[in-house]
Amino acid sequence: MDKSSLPAVVLLSGGLDSAVALAVARRDGFRCHALTIAYGQRHAVELDAARRVAAALGAVEQRVFSLDLRAFGGSALTADLDVPRDRNAEEMNSGIPITYVPARNTVFLSLALAWAETLGAFDLYIGVNAVDYSGYPDCRPEFTFAFEQLANLATKAGVEKQGRFHIHTPLVHLSKGEIIHLGLTLGVDFGLTHSCYDPAPDGAACGRCDSCRIRRDGFVAAGVPDPTRYALG
Amino acid sequence: MDKSSLPAVVLLSGGLDSAVALAVARRDGFRCHALTIAYGQRHAVELDAARRVAAALGAVEQRVFSLDLRAFGGSALTADLDVPRDRNAEEMNSGIPITYVPARNTVFLSLALAWAETLGAFDLYIGVNAVDYSGYPDCRPEFTFAFEQLANLATKAGVEKQGRFHIHTPLVHLSKGEIIHLGLTLGVDFGLTHSCYDPAPDGAACGRCDSCRIRRDGFVAAGVPDPTRYALG
Repeated sequence: MDKSSLPAVVLLSGGLDSAVALAVARRDGFRCHALTIAYGQRHAVELDAARRVAAALGAVEQRVFSLDLRAFGGSALTADLDVPRDRNAEEMNSGIPITYVPARNTVFLSLALAWAETLGAFDLYIGVNAVDYSGYPDCRPEFTFAFEQLANLATKAGVEKQGRFHIHTPLVHLSKGEIIHLGLTLGVDFGLTHSCYDPAPDGAACGRCDSCRIRRDGFVAAGVPDPTRYALG
Repeated sequence: MDKSSLPAVVLLSGGLDSAVALAVARRDGFRCHALTIAYGQRHAVELDAARRVAAALGAVEQRVFSLDLRAFGGSALTADLDVPRDRNAEEMNSGIPITYVPARNTVFLSLALAWAETLGAFDLYIGVNAVDYSGYPDCRPEFTFAFEQLANLATKAGVEKQGRFHIHTPLVHLSKGEIIHLGLTLGVDFGLTHSCYDPAPDGAACGRCDSCRIRRDGFVAAGVPDPTRYALG
């Protein structure tokens, strides 16, 4: 089906995964409206990355929506808590880490849904991943499936065209190395993306937080050069 | 069960229904954390009402969380569109009105969920109503049930205590007259609440929008005086 006239909303953080999700949405033929959420994250440098990625990957529009999840706190990304460093694979796989932001993807998908409905879009893309991920509950397929069901009940558009909303999660069953391969195939410049939770003031990646470690291991697994600018050798 | 040590998050708009929902949550024994959302609504006077209601009904805390849904528009409440006036019951029951705000209750419950998780609360109250309501899809029991399922999949707390999140909708099957009766039983002062979508600059209710008409008819049905201050006779 030619979807070139159909709009989609793509959640775009500025990280590696969401950049590939945007590239997939474009490959699928959608006109892509990229939604970036400024939620008070400590790594706000990713917002600049999102702007660069949206432009490079041909989004027809990018919006930055602001809401301050620091009002609720409860995460190392939104409260004054230390971001864990130098954890090995076993530590990273032992439970949900302190960088989990309460209900973040629920809030983000809700906002994407609101925008989609006003755009007349029924397709939402989110770059969640349940393989090389950080144990976040709202990155699992059962979560996105439940949100899809909710979307079709929650909205005027969903009621009028029951079952039409679809939450696309093209990366959910891929390893980080596979995501990187897919992105390269689709022309993603990973040098534009930002993953680090705890970057240096100049935006350089720490190389030591879970997000950096998963990303770095992904480039190794993919067997391609890592374009990330690290603060530490 | 004595829930006096248990926290709950109550969505409190400042309108009639959410005031009664808060009163019910208090009756149920919860420590109530009231969440009011400033979303760019044209009837921002309801935010003042919410503060008064929270204080009068013994919420332990009230927070006003800001996000600007005017960024998406698509509703007479958040865009430059006329609020319908003087519609009769048949007109009000014919489809979803232009005052529907895309995905509003999904966004609101998502934020309530985020706050609940940081508070250690598993109980959320929302004053939705599927009887004398305005045809909004996100006021139906199938919507809140789907959100409850989502909440238990979306969060760290939901994963750790599977099934524990509960979305309370104590008004969902009541008529407006019954809601008013219930509120009076629980000591709600409806003079503190605000329902009008299109108030005068001094906050007086228009008496003619759907929300005013449903409210006014509710007081008539309940057979009690309507304390609302109307701009028109």
